[in-house]
Amino acid sequence: MIRSDAKPYAGIFPIAPTPFTESGEIDIDGQRRVLDCMIDQKVDGICILANYSEQFLLTDDERSTLLDLCMSHVAGRVPVIVTCSHFSTRIAAARSRAAASAGAAMLMLMPPYHGATLRADEKGTLEHFARVADAAVVPIMIQDAPLSGMNLSVPFLVRLAREIPLVRYFKIEVPGSASKLRSLVEAGGDTIAGPFDGEESITLMADLDAGATGTMPSALLPDLIRPVFEHHRAGRRKEAAAAYAHILPLINFENRQCGLRATKTVMAAGGVIASDAVRHPLEALHPATKAGLLELARELDPLALHWGA
Amino acid sequence: MIRSDAKPYAGIFPIAPTPFTESGEIDIDGQRRVLDCMIDQKVDGICILANYSEQFLLTDDERSTLLDLCMSHVAGRVPVIVTCSHFSTRIAAARSRAAASAGAAMLMLMPPYHGATLRADEKGTLEHFARVADAAVVPIMIQDAPLSGMNLSVPFLVRLAREIPLVRYFKIEVPGSASKLRSLVEAGGDTIAGPFDGEESITLMADLDAGATGTMPSALLPDLIRPVFEHHRAGRRKEAAAAYAHILPLINFENRQCGLRATKTVMAAGGVIASDAVRHPLEALHPATKAGLLELARELDPLALHWGA
Amino acid sequence: MIRSDAKPYAGIFPIAPTPFTESGEIDIDGQRRVLDCMIDQKVDGICILANYSEQFLLTDDERSTLLDLCMSHVAGRVPVIVTCSHFSTRIAAARSRAAASAGAAMLMLMPPYHGATLRADEKGTLEHFARVADAAVVPIMIQDAPLSGMNLSVPFLVRLAREIPLVRYFKIEVPGSASKLRSLVEAGGDTIAGPFDGEESITLMADLDAGATGTMPSALLPDLIRPVFEHHRAGRRKEAAAAYAHILPLINFENRQCGLRATKTVMAAGGVIASDAVRHPLEALHPATKAGLLELARELDPLALHWGA
Amino acid sequence: MIRSDAKPYAGIFPIAPTPFTESGEIDIDGQRRVLDCMIDQKVDGICILANYSEQFLLTDDERSTLLDLCMSHVAGRVPVIVTCSHFSTRIAAARSRAAASAGAAMLMLMPPYHGATLRADEKGTLEHFARVADAAVVPIMIQDAPLSGMNLSVPFLVRLAREIPLVRYFKIEVPGSASKLRSLVEAGGDTIAGPFDGEESITLMADLDAGATGTMPSALLPDLIRPVFEHHRAGRRKEAAAAYAHILPLINFENRQCGLRATKTVMAAGGVIASDAVRHPLEALHPATKAGLLELARELDPLALHWGA
Repeated sequence: MIRSDAKPYAGIFPIAPTPFTESGEIDIDGQRRVLDCMIDQKVDGICILANYSEQFLLTDDERSTLLDLCMSHVAGRVPVIVTCSHFSTRIAAARSRAAASAGAAMLMLMPPYHGATLRADEKGTLEHFARVADAAVVPIMIQDAPLSGMNLSVPFLVRLAREIPLVRYFKIEVPGSASKLRSLVEAGGDTIAGPFDGEESITLMADLDAGATGTMPSALLPDLIRPVFEHHRAGRRKEAAAAYAHILPLINFENRQCGLRATKTVMAAGGVIASDAVRHPLEALHPATKAGLLELARELDPLALHWGA
Repeated sequence: MIRSDAKPYAGIFPIAPTPFTESGEIDIDGQRRVLDCMIDQKVDGICILANYSEQFLLTDDERSTLLDLCMSHVAGRVPVIVTCSHFSTRIAAARSRAAASAGAAMLMLMPPYHGATLRADEKGTLEHFARVADAAVVPIMIQDAPLSGMNLSVPFLVRLAREIPLVRYFKIEVPGSASKLRSLVEAGGDTIAGPFDGEESITLMADLDAGATGTMPSALLPDLIRPVFEHHRAGRRKEAAAAYAHILPLINFENRQCGLRATKTVMAAGGVIASDAVRHPLEALHPATKAGLLELARELDPLALHWGA
Repeated sequence: MIRSDAKPYAGIFPIAPTPFTESGEIDIDGQRRVLDCMIDQKVDGICILANYSEQFLLTDDERSTLLDLCMSHVAGRVPVIVTCSHFSTRIAAARSRAAASAGAAMLMLMPPYHGATLRADEKGTLEHFARVADAAVVPIMIQDAPLSGMNLSVPFLVRLAREIPLVRYFKIEVPGSASKLRSLVEAGGDTIAGPFDGEESITLMADLDAGATGTMPSALLPDLIRPVFEHHRAGRRKEAAAAYAHILPLINFENRQCGLRATKTVMAAGGVIASDAVRHPLEALHPATKAGLLELARELDPLALHWGA
Repeated sequence: MIRSDAKPYAGIFPIAPTPFTESGEIDIDGQRRVLDCMIDQKVDGICILANYSEQFLLTDDERSTLLDLCMSHVAGRVPVIVTCSHFSTRIAAARSRAAASAGAAMLMLMPPYHGATLRADEKGTLEHFARVADAAVVPIMIQDAPLSGMNLSVPFLVRLAREIPLVRYFKIEVPGSASKLRSLVEAGGDTIAGPFDGEESITLMADLDAGATGTMPSALLPDLIRPVFEHHRAGRRKEAAAAYAHILPLINFENRQCGLRATKTVMAAGGVIASDAVRHPLEALHPATKAGLLELARELDPLALHWGA
């Protein structure tokens, strides 16, 4: 589905966590409840199979299962972004084709990387995304994050947008995100349909000021991120800043002390999922860290903390 | 000066920025004013020649100048921690000896590293610190930060403390700092005289809960970090959390969007120093980022913003 | 199959390349011919699904296909080592169980890594290997290579061997391999059943002198590596050195200019496989590089260059 | 000295090691003997203060001492390339100005880097080199090596050459050096006055075939590299290849097992210098590695092994 004439996607597109049972199996029912909870959080869309979904700990079959499960369960209630990153261009393209067939509104991809040393250069990276775009004719969001180990300069990002028309969204989650978003918007103009940020929305206020039109947080508290977004969109910067300051202690604790485990722990406490287990070699949160997280969450009481109660 | 019977250093030990003129020279008078401002901020001590002092952009002669200038100007008003990191053990030891002679209360060192590929192994790293300790008989703080590219495990940190008696302080500024501090305190017991955090105190509340006894922020707002510290020390966690939440938007903006430039920009606005110039290839803040920083700073009005007015 | 009373594996265990058609499909018949060629090269064993097999460019299904295909086609003619590395402990264990069931003589694994930033610490890495060992009761070879981005110290490698009895083989392919092998053998004693090297055997002579009992080159010229090995094993160091010097220009060209593409190009020229295609974003060799490789290969005329003629 | 009308530098420009006494002081007399030995090796030029000179283990004062000592002792007998890399543009420029004043024929610089995380982007890197060029009006050689942790693409290298006329030489020492040199020569044309390789000349034969006009090895055996160069230059490829094969076992042992220590050990054995000490945290060669190196060196008997006897 090409929406060149449509309004670009904007707003809050959190990442769905992948719930596991204590023995490490995918919790199918829990996954459905995660999605329902997120829709009840009034998100603008959902991103699946991302790093915060532990995509690097899933088999290909599990990916397929989750793709089908999530697409059929969301069933068009909100647009779904499907992460399709793989070092192999062929595999990234096949994943993207499958995602598009299943109804993905957008694909999210990192540049190709493997381990500490295997990277493509800019030419190979451009080809990678171009082939993915040819394979799956839906908009693409480039994820610019330190995990890839590749520095994506603003001129290169703009070149991607210019040479590959489907590359229209950019999630910037690197140090100095606001400056990079500002430069991207200035240099890319209309080719940049969606300058987004990520990283649990820890930089949201600065990024909105810099021109971000969307954010990709975790699913921990999108309902509480909403006021920041709406106030800012309506020109009420002061109220936006206050709403942001209100949630910052929790986001900061999530971002620094917990990572992807925060959403799982809060959703488990809130009855959304049965367990906050992560897959080894990721480690469970220390009980004291878990207690600290829940203490902060209780003060704000996001929907995820009581949705299933 | 060995203080094995003395009370360990604890509290707020911010890093002094190194001010430059617009043409890139060290601003000697500005450096003195920075130190006076910091003492007026009621800091427990000052760290000089750190990464936030742009140590990687200084000549050896400039280091010597700054060491003498800072030690003579502080003149014992507060203890001074001197950063002495260098890939060469011999040079790190010589720097440490000079710092101790000049009256340093403590040395701060990273493990030896150079560029992307040169690192010592654990044996070489232990020898490095041991030789520094032999050369300069003052307490040592190990800086555990991503810049070194070396993963320092808790067992290895404890081994350093056990085998090198002067290694008693640890500044933990890695993801999951609170968990690491908690593990360090549990495993190291009394050999850990000072579990500190760093990174602009962005993780302070969680780290205090985990047992941190000191923090090494920038010199941007130590006066406003003070209440967090004092409330927590007195057992008033709720008040500490409120004081921390109050300053978090500014620290978060500093940490994510500005880095070491934040203190310089605020001190320049506050008349402490004449210019917020940094040395190339570091870049000046984008004017919009600068405006965003000053807007947040004005709401909190830390001493640095009006000290020289 | 546990062979605690059996003679340890030793000798030349090259990596089987994964041949692709020009359109990027796995060349099933070509894969069988690769294995037959390798057996005709009189190898002591074969390693499949390794990095030089482009494992990071394969789907899980393709892995399964290749595992079955290779095990059934080799059919016990030589022992097969199956690479089972994955960041997920659960997936690495499942892969290992499948490999053992299919008849693998040994598993090869890297420590868990993903991208530039996700690593386990030593505790997590030890658990990772221990769980794999529990799942698949065959000997394990730890691959110590820069791709993982993890520095594995000799004390840690010895600890792995001591605490996980099935961890008995170590492939060392880092700078200073001979010194590391020497230290490993000295520190690990009998727990090290097989100190191996890798990297196309570019360091073989030094490593044999240091105590290596096996090598894992590419499948380009194991027949010509054989004399180095046999001379050295028989105490004829001078002859071993001469045999090694004889093949060094080709191995050096392979190692520095071609990587995994060298074997494919030579096997394609030698009629073993139909195409030397690699999967994007890997790039085809420049025609001049290909010509340089084949010129050097023709002087030595390894079996792979005429096997299918 | 600008030589835009002069013949470009070409040939063998080895790196001078920095000799230390057993107690770690610079061995001044040894440094002079190193240079005399190198001139007797009939080198085309000498590079000082490079990574193989342990530049990352020297103080600024030691750098100055060595610059003066080397320039005055070489005294124009051969051109001298002075390495001036520093993360600070200002310091790199000051070093470059001093080198030019002292008579340097060329400067060698890496892109700015510090530790694992501090890098400039392409814009900052271009400015860095441009300011160095303005400060010191002599030709510049860009060193493209993994130590910097920065990927320098061929288009960017060509852009450097086009926008900064003094940037005319490029030392390529990355995997696939021959392909990169070939691409650089094709894309850069006349702006590339000197495509060089490095890394102990381990890739020399392939690089000469690709168009390299110079090489920067260690000072271990430039007299034995000479025939490779002269045969190749005269169109005798077969003889060049034979000469290269002859020395490859020693270069390979140097490159893989010894690094910068090889030249020192051979020069100490050959009476050029009194000690092969390196500075901590670099480690001395294991005695067995040293024995292996000397065994290989004795077979070839380069000048360095008997110069001082």
